[in-house]
Amino acid sequence: MDNDRFLRALRREPVDATPVWIMRQAGRYLPEYRATRARAGSFVNLCKTPELACEVTLQPIARFPLDAAILFSDILTVPDAMGLGLSVDEGVGPRLAKPVRTRADIDALGVPDPETELRYVMDAVRLIRRELNGKVPLIGFAGSPWTLACYMIEGEGSASFARAKALAWDDPATMHKLLDIVARAVVRYLAAQAAAGAQALMVFDTWGGLLAPGLFREFSLRYLAQIAQSLQSDNVAKSIPLILFSKGANGHLEALADTGCAALGLDWTISLDDARVRVGTRVALQGNLDPAVLHASPDAIRAEVGKALASFGPHPGHVFNLGHGITPDVDPERLGVLVDAVHELSAASS
Amino acid sequence: MDNDRFLRALRREPVDATPVWIMRQAGRYLPEYRATRARAGSFVNLCKTPELACEVTLQPIARFPLDAAILFSDILTVPDAMGLGLSVDEGVGPRLAKPVRTRADIDALGVPDPETELRYVMDAVRLIRRELNGKVPLIGFAGSPWTLACYMIEGEGSASFARAKALAWDDPATMHKLLDIVARAVVRYLAAQAAAGAQALMVFDTWGGLLAPGLFREFSLRYLAQIAQSLQSDNVAKSIPLILFSKGANGHLEALADTGCAALGLDWTISLDDARVRVGTRVALQGNLDPAVLHASPDAIRAEVGKALASFGPHPGHVFNLGHGITPDVDPERLGVLVDAVHELSAASS
Repeated sequence: MDNDRFLRALRREPVDATPVWIMRQAGRYLPEYRATRARAGSFVNLCKTPELACEVTLQPIARFPLDAAILFSDILTVPDAMGLGLSVDEGVGPRLAKPVRTRADIDALGVPDPETELRYVMDAVRLIRRELNGKVPLIGFAGSPWTLACYMIEGEGSASFARAKALAWDDPATMHKLLDIVARAVVRYLAAQAAAGAQALMVFDTWGGLLAPGLFREFSLRYLAQIAQSLQSDNVAKSIPLILFSKGANGHLEALADTGCAALGLDWTISLDDARVRVGTRVALQGNLDPAVLHASPDAIRAEVGKALASFGPHPGHVFNLGHGITPDVDPERLGVLVDAVHELSAASS
Repeated sequence: MDNDRFLRALRREPVDATPVWIMRQAGRYLPEYRATRARAGSFVNLCKTPELACEVTLQPIARFPLDAAILFSDILTVPDAMGLGLSVDEGVGPRLAKPVRTRADIDALGVPDPETELRYVMDAVRLIRRELNGKVPLIGFAGSPWTLACYMIEGEGSASFARAKALAWDDPATMHKLLDIVARAVVRYLAAQAAAGAQALMVFDTWGGLLAPGLFREFSLRYLAQIAQSLQSDNVAKSIPLILFSKGANGHLEALADTGCAALGLDWTISLDDARVRVGTRVALQGNLDPAVLHASPDAIRAEVGKALASFGPHPGHVFNLGHGITPDVDPERLGVLVDAVHELSAASS
């Protein structure tokens, strides 16, 4: 490995400079991404063609001195492999042709075999690892059971996911049945990514923060913990660091840190020093600048990077990132300013 | 006053049953609202015609045994009166024809005189008070300076309000100049509503929760405190309880309670008992069921109401509400179930 800062930080070991990668770093803000996306014909086809998924995964690594690559894919590959029929209209959002609405729909779901039903993802992981050739580590990922269940029930994005929540209130046993099968599918999927070469794993609980505290513990946290525990029983995955990111769930950081994960992703609505005080040294922290900072001037970006580094302090265990994905309207040069500032300012203060 | 539970709860005095009102209780989920809205021709015309604003304000009071009425209006009446030109396309959102983008735009803004430039609001307040005839108290409201500035800069809604945040990062002095004039306009507007008859005042900091902690303190909290302080210098408003609601800003409850407000609105991502422990008995609390609960069964709604009441406990100072506005897709009968459950379950346990 030419650059193992990211993996060292996840293990809370000292580093020469704070590692940085960016959620959605392979995305629409990059003209080279938009060109490949146009060649692919559709977003789903881009995900399902390993050569193209590999190409866009490597684009931000070629352009910026990032310290990790993340598999280009989508969290809804798992419901798609369960037979729900994924399509993505960029700018509108994902859609599942066959949402689950009844107990019978849920009883009919099976756990996909990653090497057959999600083979295109495993092939992409193997291809990316080969092409990266040790330059930086590769992150694999999945959606959280709660977040996937939201989409599986609604069939599309929603401001409130009221239909999913109503199932949790009205028929918790059925909701748990759905979450359990999705959690088992996610564990197999992540373990297979690890076996194929992913060197870190991340679970995106994008909609966990929409839940009231009691519901979060029962319907989101419980399955995040189940995933962290189950991966510990997998021969390969047990040695691969797991990052949990429950967006908007800052009230639950201590419980998330207790799941046995290696690191927590943080959104920008909590300061890094507050988060560190709350979770102690049990886990590394990943985050957490407001993505909107990339609309500010280069001087302001550098200043905000400096404040975030100072807030985390001179401890091991920080992976720099935004607090949410980079948006399509960002000038890529601004991201270059951010990445350089992370390395320069953290190296200078270490 | 026939029913002063709401005002008693805001003063943290004992009540025979927990008072309840609902954010956006005069809204699109009610067929009678949709009929009046159609007659008005446009949302803005509905706001600007005191007789129609009065009519929709009273509709939920006629249908449900709610303990407070809230003026039907929009937070963007203030920027509109400042000359920015408000239009609202329901289902899409508000738009300001002349957003502020430059220091010159901001220097040109003045503080509107409520009794002339916002006369239609004051007339609506007076008319509603007369028509309510002491049945329940009337709440007046305004948007927070930060939230109004977001719209004034962007000209419309936004997922991230990146343009407003970029101004805060790049030119904080100009952002403070904008926030200061908006805060002064809000103070005059709220004081005028109190003089016209509003018996409680609420400030909606809808987008405060989008700010990182340092920015929240500097650009949102500071002006909420300025409003609370300034209203204390107003002969009428100083005796009117002020409710602050910073959605998504649960990390700042202690500081919000220190502003001198009477009550804090809470969204549903914090439990009422946690919030009470954090703010003590300095303020009353208003909230906080997830609006999505109104998509669950009547039994589940009653159960969730019971849990929220039990979480707050047998203390004075609770105003029941949702944690955000009721959504247009709710069956009004479900809201009836919720309102009755609040009164019955709280009276039974008191």
